[in-house]
Amino acid sequence: MTYSYIRDGAEIYRRSFAIIRAEANLGRFSPEQEPVAVRVIHASGQVDAAADLLFSPDFVGAARRALESGAPILCDAKMIAGGITRARLPANNEVICTLADPAVPGLAAEIGNTRSAAALGLWKEHIAGAVVAIGNAPTALFHLLELFDAGWPLPAAIIGMPVGFVGAAESKEALIAFGRIPFLVARGRRGGSAMTVAAINALASTKE
Amino acid sequence: MTYSYIRDGAEIYRRSFAIIRAEANLGRFSPEQEPVAVRVIHASGQVDAAADLLFSPDFVGAARRALESGAPILCDAKMIAGGITRARLPANNEVICTLADPAVPGLAAEIGNTRSAAALGLWKEHIAGAVVAIGNAPTALFHLLELFDAGWPLPAAIIGMPVGFVGAAESKEALIAFGRIPFLVARGRRGGSAMTVAAINALASTKE
Repeated sequence: MTYSYIRDGAEIYRRSFAIIRAEANLGRFSPEQEPVAVRVIHASGQVDAAADLLFSPDFVGAARRALESGAPILCDAKMIAGGITRARLPANNEVICTLADPAVPGLAAEIGNTRSAAALGLWKEHIAGAVVAIGNAPTALFHLLELFDAGWPLPAAIIGMPVGFVGAAESKEALIAFGRIPFLVARGRRGGSAMTVAAINALASTKE
Repeated sequence: MTYSYIRDGAEIYRRSFAIIRAEANLGRFSPEQEPVAVRVIHASGQVDAAADLLFSPDFVGAARRALESGAPILCDAKMIAGGITRARLPANNEVICTLADPAVPGLAAEIGNTRSAAALGLWKEHIAGAVVAIGNAPTALFHLLELFDAGWPLPAAIIGMPVGFVGAAESKEALIAFGRIPFLVARGRRGGSAMTVAAINALASTKE
């Protein structure tokens, strides 16, 4: 049997984004935020994810300028690093995930935190002006805020989209309250690597 | 400032699963399906994802037996292949994603379908008795059903969780209607690599 379905990838994207723009409540996003929101909603498969998204007013501009000037992208999870479409990146930007570094289990024991949090201790030389994408571990986002409070230089922009039931919502509220870094968060429990990758891919290029 | 949050990964998992078991409606799942459903819900961040999940009665047993006997895991997206926790796999199972194969763009043009669909044409030697994880492209799931109809050998079990607004829901209903392969699907638009990886990780080991 032959199934009836659209087989053209570009047409699937066009129709998907048209459905999202027809169904989702996008009215509170600025013209530069809207395409980022659309891509994140696309990755979530749910138009009501629009209600979770909060952009600081300076986020899209800060993240785009950083990427265009060659800033690295720092990710808390390998799935995020793996999912970023390299061909969309404007300056062949380096994509860094330190979770698999052999030093991480020892660092985690030393600081009494998860491996996801401890892995961020290896970001120090990369963090100034970087674009940060936290899409898995609430502990990573909390620990990064602690490192900033301890005097680390700040990144250009941060995507805070850890997912889950313990600490995820709280870590994202802490990022909003921190207030010193342009941010995009998905408030509440929803988030994850796919939504985070979609945000990076949308910021990397205005091509839809 | 020091934030108050749980820093022990195992304790975060325990509390997360306890919250899901308290809040989600899991009553229609069998005892062997329930831990798989819990992990998929965990990855989605939303307890109402329980309502989307449909297991064929033979799915968990068929998938577990295949993995224990060394079956490969065939994935439509690199993010899925990258996210599977190798240490949980019972037989050091091979994890295969053919999307980046240099033959794929040519195959896609030849069959007039997406690269995600065309990449599955390279699965033929691996498909018999495999565990299939489709968590990204509806076109991949539709095309795989077409290949089975054209006489391909069948896998042991299939996870059908493509995400999105064009074809995703329809492709999963087509898998359910196909009826000749044990399946787990997330009906509707929701799905994606994180939920798909969670299903594989749950099937790979009963450890929570």
